[in-house]
Amino acid sequence: MHTKRVVVIGMGFGGVRAARALAGSGLDVLLIDRNNYHLFQPLLYQVASAGLEQESIAYSIRAMARQWPNVRFHLTEVTGVDFDAREVQTTSGPVGYDYLIIGAGSATNFFGLTTVQQYAYDLKELEDAEVLRNQILNCFEQAVTEPDPARKRALMTFVIVGGGPTGVEFAGALIELVTYVLAKDYPELGIHTARVVLVEATDRLLAAMPQELGMYTLQKLRSMCVEVLLNAQVVDADNTRVVLHDGAVIPAHTLIWSAGVKAAPLAATLQTAHAGGGRIPVQPDLTLADHPEVYVVGDMAWLEQEGKILPMVAPVAMQMGAYAGAAVLAREQGETPEPFCYHDKGSMATIGRNTAVATAFGLNLKGYPAWLAWLLLHVYYLIGFRNRIVVLLNWVWYYWFHERQVRLITRRKASDSL
Amino acid sequence: MHTKRVVVIGMGFGGVRAARALAGSGLDVLLIDRNNYHLFQPLLYQVASAGLEQESIAYSIRAMARQWPNVRFHLTEVTGVDFDAREVQTTSGPVGYDYLIIGAGSATNFFGLTTVQQYAYDLKELEDAEVLRNQILNCFEQAVTEPDPARKRALMTFVIVGGGPTGVEFAGALIELVTYVLAKDYPELGIHTARVVLVEATDRLLAAMPQELGMYTLQKLRSMCVEVLLNAQVVDADNTRVVLHDGAVIPAHTLIWSAGVKAAPLAATLQTAHAGGGRIPVQPDLTLADHPEVYVVGDMAWLEQEGKILPMVAPVAMQMGAYAGAAVLAREQGETPEPFCYHDKGSMATIGRNTAVATAFGLNLKGYPAWLAWLLLHVYYLIGFRNRIVVLLNWVWYYWFHERQVRLITRRKASDSL
Repeated sequence: MHTKRVVVIGMGFGGVRAARALAGSGLDVLLIDRNNYHLFQPLLYQVASAGLEQESIAYSIRAMARQWPNVRFHLTEVTGVDFDAREVQTTSGPVGYDYLIIGAGSATNFFGLTTVQQYAYDLKELEDAEVLRNQILNCFEQAVTEPDPARKRALMTFVIVGGGPTGVEFAGALIELVTYVLAKDYPELGIHTARVVLVEATDRLLAAMPQELGMYTLQKLRSMCVEVLLNAQVVDADNTRVVLHDGAVIPAHTLIWSAGVKAAPLAATLQTAHAGGGRIPVQPDLTLADHPEVYVVGDMAWLEQEGKILPMVAPVAMQMGAYAGAAVLAREQGETPEPFCYHDKGSMATIGRNTAVATAFGLNLKGYPAWLAWLLLHVYYLIGFRNRIVVLLNWVWYYWFHERQVRLITRRKASDSL
Repeated sequence: MHTKRVVVIGMGFGGVRAARALAGSGLDVLLIDRNNYHLFQPLLYQVASAGLEQESIAYSIRAMARQWPNVRFHLTEVTGVDFDAREVQTTSGPVGYDYLIIGAGSATNFFGLTTVQQYAYDLKELEDAEVLRNQILNCFEQAVTEPDPARKRALMTFVIVGGGPTGVEFAGALIELVTYVLAKDYPELGIHTARVVLVEATDRLLAAMPQELGMYTLQKLRSMCVEVLLNAQVVDADNTRVVLHDGAVIPAHTLIWSAGVKAAPLAATLQTAHAGGGRIPVQPDLTLADHPEVYVVGDMAWLEQEGKILPMVAPVAMQMGAYAGAAVLAREQGETPEPFCYHDKGSMATIGRNTAVATAFGLNLKGYPAWLAWLLLHVYYLIGFRNRIVVLLNWVWYYWFHERQVRLITRRKASDSL
């Protein structure tokens, strides 16, 4: 009898937990990702706002896999899966499996707005964060030598779409970068004319959290001089302006889209049913109805629990991935795993350097205690002891000295208009 | 009488020292660079060998300029200088000056070998180091799934051209990355088949240092399994092979060129005399013969001292830049500055994690004492307290744990052949 092979597609939060559960088992485990690192996405906005280096939030998969003797890694892109042949198709050739765990994650959802997709920046991949940071700093540099005051102000206007945690956190970090750091870097600019605008389609921020916390966040951001537009939708954009659904036009050279995610493109190639956002409905044990050897975890999975679809967030992916890995092991022992049950331990979002909101176990926290909890949790979940030290070092620098040390434009733009 | 304006082109070692000397004076100082940071070039090879993040060796110019109230910065590209009109031409328009200090540095010299220039990697800019690191790691990843043993070995073969400090240091760092770090990351590869080849056109390494140290370096590198080819020149290359002058062919997917530098392209646009490497001859006080208000410092300057042309190295640029800044101040006080005199405080080069060679004040050091001196000096000259801490942290990690923590491929390649 041959050694069973488990293939894990995607080394995000779901895939990493699955790999950990399967490590040291007697199974042959192959991890596949198109990047050679696990990315800690929740901190991407910090790279984009010059608070962290990109390398602090990424951890080499091979470094992880060193202590897992039965685990291998291939850097390659998955193009599809043949469920009948039990083969994963990749750009380096086909890979057979006995069990498959798919955790390829999600992609930004532009809701069919093609001009927006063309001009907007988003925050899903490591490169996105560096590109956005470069854009922000380049805009200010360009503003220094821009003679036309209207164009100057448009260069210093940043529109963020989406009032969920990503948009809120980035808006807070960006307004602080401008107010405390760039104001000193650019004494020759009237920094007070810079604008950070947060656009949200519904009537509240952080809609997935209790209303009290959403209201607190709204007031806090406005007190920090973020312009928050509620019940507003972006419908069009080009490289110098953003257009809202009511005809309002905001002259701005930078549009950041964090208004929605959908399943990764791989999902559409799979011969299965699809639900909202292209996600794949799974059984209570996270397997596909017709292919019980295939698990789908994380953002790609569509599963209802207590009348609600589980959200596309990191803790869900982590618990699903850990479950899938353990379930495979249980089945190999001849056992039948219990159905998956997600334990919601709460959620949180920061609003600048020492404020946050958090909700857990029915408790709502705001202000400094919430922020401290956020900091400890994120450092804990970061992978890599050295990464934790570097991140803490950067945050100490920022907290005590109000310095963002990574104000570097790392790729020169061509001299065409921004 | 108007305030005199000093324009400094280039914020390398020369420009930074000039700016420091001019800060706090009554003059209006404008710094120009096409990047918004000062780059610590001597440590580029460490970013390329996954030992440091790129942000650790770059320091924001605006952060430096904060404590210099009379100093401003423009991020722009200089296209030429009109000496008669006393104007610097830039992509953002012309800039007038009363004094000009040009320190635009150097570029890689491929000696007219166009195919080599097309396929070789070099180490002059921050992006170069990240691109080279990605290439090295991508080659190993590709080797994992490569079925042909000959192609596999060519993927794991790295040819470095140039036996000066840059080539020596990179060869040592690369062989250690492969031997101590990648060997553990890629247990499935026969890492012992990887090759690091150092090609030098003359019959010795580190030709600018005493022969004893060059011999020591040669023996050390060979004991670390670097193949050193002396009296050898690369004449041709494509993406899978390197061709030497005697017809030898080395199958290799990565060629790194550190065999020479020449003056930055700006030099060729200037209406002055030119000497070897396109460098600009200067008077004993570093000014242009026909334009005494213009100084040229650093790699671009051609100046003889005691029968030898001053080399294109960082200490020369630092001393020239400091001199030029002080000279401008002296002239504004009505004084005549002494001629420039370079004080050679020695040079050094590392060979891996705890060995180096150094020569100073007639003394030759090798081994561990030289390495310690190298470490302290480089940390001292790095700009930015936080940068020093991060770099020391990375080096501690490397020295004690033999870990190179930055083994990330940060930009995905298209799936075409490497």
